[in-house]
Amino acid sequence: MDRLHNYYAGPAALPTEVLEEAREELLNFQSSGCSVMETSHRSKEYDAVHNEAVSLVKELMGLDDKFHVIMVQGGASSQFAMVPMNLLSEGKSADYVLTGSWSQKAIKEAKNIGTVRVAADTSVDGVFTSLPKQDELDLDSNATYCHITSNNTIFGTQFRTFPNVGNVPLVADMSSDILSHKFDPSPFGIIYAGAQKNLGPSGVTLVIIRDDVLQQCNTNLPTMFTYKTHVDKNSLYNTPPTFGIYLMNKVLNWIKSNGGIKGVAKENTAKAELLYGTIDNSNGFYVNNIPADDRSQMNVVFRLPSEDLEKKFVADGLDAGFLGLKGHRSVGGIRISMYNATRLSSIEKFVGFMNDFSAKNG
Amino acid sequence: MDRLHNYYAGPAALPTEVLEEAREELLNFQSSGCSVMETSHRSKEYDAVHNEAVSLVKELMGLDDKFHVIMVQGGASSQFAMVPMNLLSEGKSADYVLTGSWSQKAIKEAKNIGTVRVAADTSVDGVFTSLPKQDELDLDSNATYCHITSNNTIFGTQFRTFPNVGNVPLVADMSSDILSHKFDPSPFGIIYAGAQKNLGPSGVTLVIIRDDVLQQCNTNLPTMFTYKTHVDKNSLYNTPPTFGIYLMNKVLNWIKSNGGIKGVAKENTAKAELLYGTIDNSNGFYVNNIPADDRSQMNVVFRLPSEDLEKKFVADGLDAGFLGLKGHRSVGGIRISMYNATRLSSIEKFVGFMNDFSAKNG
Repeated sequence: MDRLHNYYAGPAALPTEVLEEAREELLNFQSSGCSVMETSHRSKEYDAVHNEAVSLVKELMGLDDKFHVIMVQGGASSQFAMVPMNLLSEGKSADYVLTGSWSQKAIKEAKNIGTVRVAADTSVDGVFTSLPKQDELDLDSNATYCHITSNNTIFGTQFRTFPNVGNVPLVADMSSDILSHKFDPSPFGIIYAGAQKNLGPSGVTLVIIRDDVLQQCNTNLPTMFTYKTHVDKNSLYNTPPTFGIYLMNKVLNWIKSNGGIKGVAKENTAKAELLYGTIDNSNGFYVNNIPADDRSQMNVVFRLPSEDLEKKFVADGLDAGFLGLKGHRSVGGIRISMYNATRLSSIEKFVGFMNDFSAKNG
Repeated sequence: MDRLHNYYAGPAALPTEVLEEAREELLNFQSSGCSVMETSHRSKEYDAVHNEAVSLVKELMGLDDKFHVIMVQGGASSQFAMVPMNLLSEGKSADYVLTGSWSQKAIKEAKNIGTVRVAADTSVDGVFTSLPKQDELDLDSNATYCHITSNNTIFGTQFRTFPNVGNVPLVADMSSDILSHKFDPSPFGIIYAGAQKNLGPSGVTLVIIRDDVLQQCNTNLPTMFTYKTHVDKNSLYNTPPTFGIYLMNKVLNWIKSNGGIKGVAKENTAKAELLYGTIDNSNGFYVNNIPADDRSQMNVVFRLPSEDLEKKFVADGLDAGFLGLKGHRSVGGIRISMYNATRLSSIEKFVGFMNDFSAKNG
């Protein structure tokens, strides 16, 4: 069997070119005599990879010297705790915008550590199918930070423009849409992202910290849970996940060679227009009720007329070469995750399958 | 250039067969249509890998049902904090046996969290060249646990038999010698190990917890730093480092096919006898002053008559195909790390180089 069209939500598809390059040098990296995963994290070969990854993140995202870029372990789930551990000291309060399951988890961790205000909650009967408008945000201008989840993988919503929170630093979980579209990073105090959607394999977490926010961070925490440790040591305080960072660096190079953020953003928009267009033009066979402005370009969720048809859609889809169509177990339905590595040509084939399926089963 | 003899201290050599298998299926794992690192951590393909890794650890180490096996992120450095966070509540005290740089770091983290007694300290002027004998241990029979570092990568010492601490649970950092020799696990409350020496690539941390110790653990910690989270969810609370676990599973299978722990231990002993024998029979050209019982089978450290000769040894060694000979930057000299994946045939070639070098430069 060949490689299929992979729409898993994460871990997710990587660019085939990246995997081919990794395969080519898996046993002997740059004639070093060993695999990149067998070399010391203090070797000159690894050092070059590590530093290139950091500088490509800065270059691609347009981050100036106010921002530090670190690579740590533990996923966004660890950041849910590390953000408040580092920032929410006694007497401080943080705003959280509640837009889905991941924000819910971030709030739960923060509440165990400090004072949390929920600045908006878009749930209706436990379901989050929209994002708050600017005037629906109840913001505290004295908040230490305001936390958002930029893209909600489960419910398929995405902040395409970010809330205006004035001088309060934005803190964003961008695990599922980092590097997928261009935005002004200056309002952000912290951006964090598990790598396994847009950046590389699972096991690497990218964290971007603005220097003025870093200077407010606690330093009386366990060494590994202190942001300052990793900034001061350039993410080499202890052994980093070297192979994951190596693959992330290849993905970053791949983005650069595909026109940078501008290039991938253009393709992401084309993919989204095509897929949402197919849904909206299906005469109600495929249904996505998310307001147009809130629809995610990364995770497209939709329903069919019945759960039986959804099962058949998943099964027929797999037969036709489309992997990972099933919606998240908490909400059901169909979910197509199409991160940067998913090409427009793949979505073109997929909407062909969708049109065939609705014609036969509609 | 071909693959060299790799003696890096970690990340370290992996079995060539493991890398070849990984290369073969890197773009399409078991005809699933994608790489193992591109599949969902909830897919049946990944699930089988994950569970096989857990059961192979249990089988190879002879762990009965009293023990839980989890795979987390953050390295041993994170465990330095997680152990006391989970176990050292108010009013409790832990013993730590200080035998090198890694124990020092473990003690520093624990002291920030709870009450720590140093049960032994073998340093002389900041250098640790021996391990404490049983009668040199000042043990607290009421300690919540007693922490040891089973193998000291920097100073080249290793507990081949473990301190007898009565009913106090032993907690061991086994990052650098796990699965290298057989021992009775029953006195151990917690064993933890970063994968990047004997188990796989960096980015996976193996933690083994005895159930009675787990039951004493705090559960009012951040979710990700609570052992119970990962035990209850079989290390799938959040996305695990799937590719690292996949490679670890291959390494575990490789150990099994090489005679299990018994097989690798026999080879490790043969490698150590050959290398230490070469040092001891060099008429003082190569010097290792560690007491015979305390010598590490994993990391062999030695000095030459001068630093200039040590530099020449490292350079000539690299020319002859031997990588990673330099001692740790904090102590200098030469260090040969020879974990499970280093074969006896490699050490046979290396001692040939050593004998040539001493004949020419002695």
